[in-house]
Amino acid sequence: VSADGYSLGELAGRFGLGLRGDPAQRIRGVATLAAAGADTLSFLANPAYRRQLADCAAGAVVLAEADGAHFRGNCLFSRNAYADFARIAALFAPRRVAAPGIHPSAVVDPSAEVDPTAEVGPLCTVGARSRIAAGVRLGPGCSIGEDCVVGDDSELVARVTLVTRVRLGRRVLLHPGVVLGADGFGLAFDQGQWLKVPQLGGVLVGDDCEVGANTCIDRGALDDTVLEDDVRLDNLIQVGHNVRIGAHTAIAGCTAIAGSTRIGQYCLIAGGVGIAGHLVIGDRVRINAMSLVSRSLDGPGEYASGSPLQEVRAWRRNAARIRQLDRLARAVQRVSKDVIDE
Amino acid sequence: VSADGYSLGELAGRFGLGLRGDPAQRIRGVATLAAAGADTLSFLANPAYRRQLADCAAGAVVLAEADGAHFRGNCLFSRNAYADFARIAALFAPRRVAAPGIHPSAVVDPSAEVDPTAEVGPLCTVGARSRIAAGVRLGPGCSIGEDCVVGDDSELVARVTLVTRVRLGRRVLLHPGVVLGADGFGLAFDQGQWLKVPQLGGVLVGDDCEVGANTCIDRGALDDTVLEDDVRLDNLIQVGHNVRIGAHTAIAGCTAIAGSTRIGQYCLIAGGVGIAGHLVIGDRVRINAMSLVSRSLDGPGEYASGSPLQEVRAWRRNAARIRQLDRLARAVQRVSKDVIDE
Amino acid sequence: VSADGYSLGELAGRFGLGLRGDPAQRIRGVATLAAAGADTLSFLANPAYRRQLADCAAGAVVLAEADGAHFRGNCLFSRNAYADFARIAALFAPRRVAAPGIHPSAVVDPSAEVDPTAEVGPLCTVGARSRIAAGVRLGPGCSIGEDCVVGDDSELVARVTLVTRVRLGRRVLLHPGVVLGADGFGLAFDQGQWLKVPQLGGVLVGDDCEVGANTCIDRGALDDTVLEDDVRLDNLIQVGHNVRIGAHTAIAGCTAIAGSTRIGQYCLIAGGVGIAGHLVIGDRVRINAMSLVSRSLDGPGEYASGSPLQEVRAWRRNAARIRQLDRLARAVQRVSKDVIDE
Repeated sequence: VSADGYSLGELAGRFGLGLRGDPAQRIRGVATLAAAGADTLSFLANPAYRRQLADCAAGAVVLAEADGAHFRGNCLFSRNAYADFARIAALFAPRRVAAPGIHPSAVVDPSAEVDPTAEVGPLCTVGARSRIAAGVRLGPGCSIGEDCVVGDDSELVARVTLVTRVRLGRRVLLHPGVVLGADGFGLAFDQGQWLKVPQLGGVLVGDDCEVGANTCIDRGALDDTVLEDDVRLDNLIQVGHNVRIGAHTAIAGCTAIAGSTRIGQYCLIAGGVGIAGHLVIGDRVRINAMSLVSRSLDGPGEYASGSPLQEVRAWRRNAARIRQLDRLARAVQRVSKDVIDE
Repeated sequence: VSADGYSLGELAGRFGLGLRGDPAQRIRGVATLAAAGADTLSFLANPAYRRQLADCAAGAVVLAEADGAHFRGNCLFSRNAYADFARIAALFAPRRVAAPGIHPSAVVDPSAEVDPTAEVGPLCTVGARSRIAAGVRLGPGCSIGEDCVVGDDSELVARVTLVTRVRLGRRVLLHPGVVLGADGFGLAFDQGQWLKVPQLGGVLVGDDCEVGANTCIDRGALDDTVLEDDVRLDNLIQVGHNVRIGAHTAIAGCTAIAGSTRIGQYCLIAGGVGIAGHLVIGDRVRINAMSLVSRSLDGPGEYASGSPLQEVRAWRRNAARIRQLDRLARAVQRVSKDVIDE
Repeated sequence: VSADGYSLGELAGRFGLGLRGDPAQRIRGVATLAAAGADTLSFLANPAYRRQLADCAAGAVVLAEADGAHFRGNCLFSRNAYADFARIAALFAPRRVAAPGIHPSAVVDPSAEVDPTAEVGPLCTVGARSRIAAGVRLGPGCSIGEDCVVGDDSELVARVTLVTRVRLGRRVLLHPGVVLGADGFGLAFDQGQWLKVPQLGGVLVGDDCEVGANTCIDRGALDDTVLEDDVRLDNLIQVGHNVRIGAHTAIAGCTAIAGSTRIGQYCLIAGGVGIAGHLVIGDRVRINAMSLVSRSLDGPGEYASGSPLQEVRAWRRNAARIRQLDRLARAVQRVSKDVIDE
């Protein structure tokens, strides 16, 4: 991006947005409504921030046409302000491109194949028979095991571990501390002790997936663990062996999915959710934060579990009653004509 | 394993299994019921998959004799099909053995002791006074701090960190991203700010333990944090300082155990569980997923907390009532003869 | 610390403690009440351990004057025994100091600035335009990205990752596996797929903060994610983009905080808590373990959610009734004169 940035007129034309105001206004960066100055662009997507428009000093704001009345300055009108803002912001922060070559401190197995356009950063290791495709960027300290594939234009930011038989599609983005392909938690109990069940499958990750920091996806026991295209995982998520996650599903941080569960496409799973093993979750299912899913779910649908936050004194009184709930219900049934059993 | 694999007769004899069918059938690999072909072995352990036997093309299936009627092909009869399958599968995926020697990119303190049969992989560090025993394999990028011991035939797959005073038994298996021996969360509040309480103990891990990716076990404050033999931990688990986990206990992913709690032997703790500090959990206790344990528990026993998943509209109506539960119970007591207080 | 340790009289004088017993008693280390011997010092802070005083063989115990009657040996009387014990213990375990210099295996960008008194350990990387200040210790395998600052006397124990634009204050302590400055989870849904929202902010960490193993703090989307001074985070915590955590707040392991939430000063947040995004939590708020916070909270106050642990058979009966709770409440209202709606 040149120091001169872009004119509003250029941006409106390039992204097909309505423009109200001065098309010659220069935009040299992006910022929040509160922080934006005269040559920066901001956006309004969450209505909770609408009142900030009154005092906003931005050179222009991307927003819905219906919100235009709340802002006196230049506007770019959009039917999806967050998405159009994302596209404009990307002009000011282009994704890092690979600097081709293998850093002298990296350790690459002679049988590995590294495309000449790929970057293998300092202190990386690449194991036997693995393949690093065109335009890939392996940041510092990544460890690629044996029989892995990193697809075209993927980026492993730093200190990512692919253990064994992990195959990534194109434009996959893995953040630091990610571990893909570690053994699943497969144990057989026999004669008073645990016997490890060999974990022989791999991990298959589709195109355009993103995996957050310190998230773990285990290799399958026999078949693969699979992420279809455009799956988006936040930080510190656990994905058990042989899980399959459908295309375009997004999952927030600290959620855990036990082995062999299949999750549909276009699901939205909030943070801290637990999903038991061997379930089937349909397409377009939404699950609220910290819910426990212990049965299969049809989609579309929105599900929740858990109890509301209370001041601790009220919580103590009420929570103690949960242990009496069945007796309470029976007592009510004896004095009431209502049948409340399902 | 030779390309020719094993005959069914050999496998039956070696593992003491009943054979129905052709003892000369060659087995060259293992697979799921759905994926198995003519020269691969599969297994049935979870009854939910029994109906897959009808169409299964496996060269043989390990299963309970009672399930034999559901499969027309060759059978290996077992009283613990999962365990016997694990033993046979291990023939086709032998545990990786150490390639003796220290990689030239590793940094080993002169006072550390590395057995000549041990492998220290690329980009590892081994700190002062640490000892790497016979047959150990340190995969790429492991960081062993000071005063640590890695016992015979243990494997640290890749990028494992042992901070200080961590002593591992024999045949311990640690997956990538594991951190053993970081400081416990010891803080004293004094004069308006936090004062760090020095963490001086270590971590002691028994024989045959396995620890999953990105799991953390803190060093003790004064004494050690202890895992007895054959403890099995999944990924992303937090074990606080001075916790003790009894032999043969298995814990699923994303569970957190606060400081100084003692957990018995042969416990099964599901994923996402939280266990408060300074508790005592007996032997053979089972805890369901995402339960909060805030008191000591006798064993044997099975415990749970939490509320069931509901469609979000029903959940909103019902969850709001939890805040009225004590008043509701009092109202019931006034109209009912039942005494429901415990 | 010399082998001869300290006399009780010295310790009492140095820390302003009352002394009962022999001022000449030598103290050569610290230990728990159960393990302490004749030349070691122990402490009593948690009343649950008071009965261990009877058999305690410690050379001296730090405790409240009111507890002195329970111990026959030498006492150091304190109004904050845990804090004074921490200060004395620190004499026997001084914080590791930097061994100035850059290890030959480290990879430091020519535009990075490393103070001559700082230690850059083996297999570290330091990226462009980053600055490592005086007295800093980077342990083995740390990866510092571009445009980062590590403030005076901070320690990154091992394998810590600072991604981009992370600025640490003075005396910050980061444990292994920590990832600061990874992209926040910013996604816009558009035309059937996810569009990544560029993450351009940084992470700002105040003085005297401590961050536990494998904890992740994402960079802000536009502004910074901020930890004020003296914030203490345990292991495996997720802090989303643009979160702000007030000074002196402490958070236990496996807690997750979604984006743009502001947490006040002097808060105590237990383990496994989930806090939704865009909330405001006041000063001196306490939140119990595994609570879900989905609304803003005034401080001071103590809050909880969740239901009590039960034996699994009782739990099944009672939990099933939670799904009938609204109907149950309506039935009660029909037979009761009490109005229980809020």
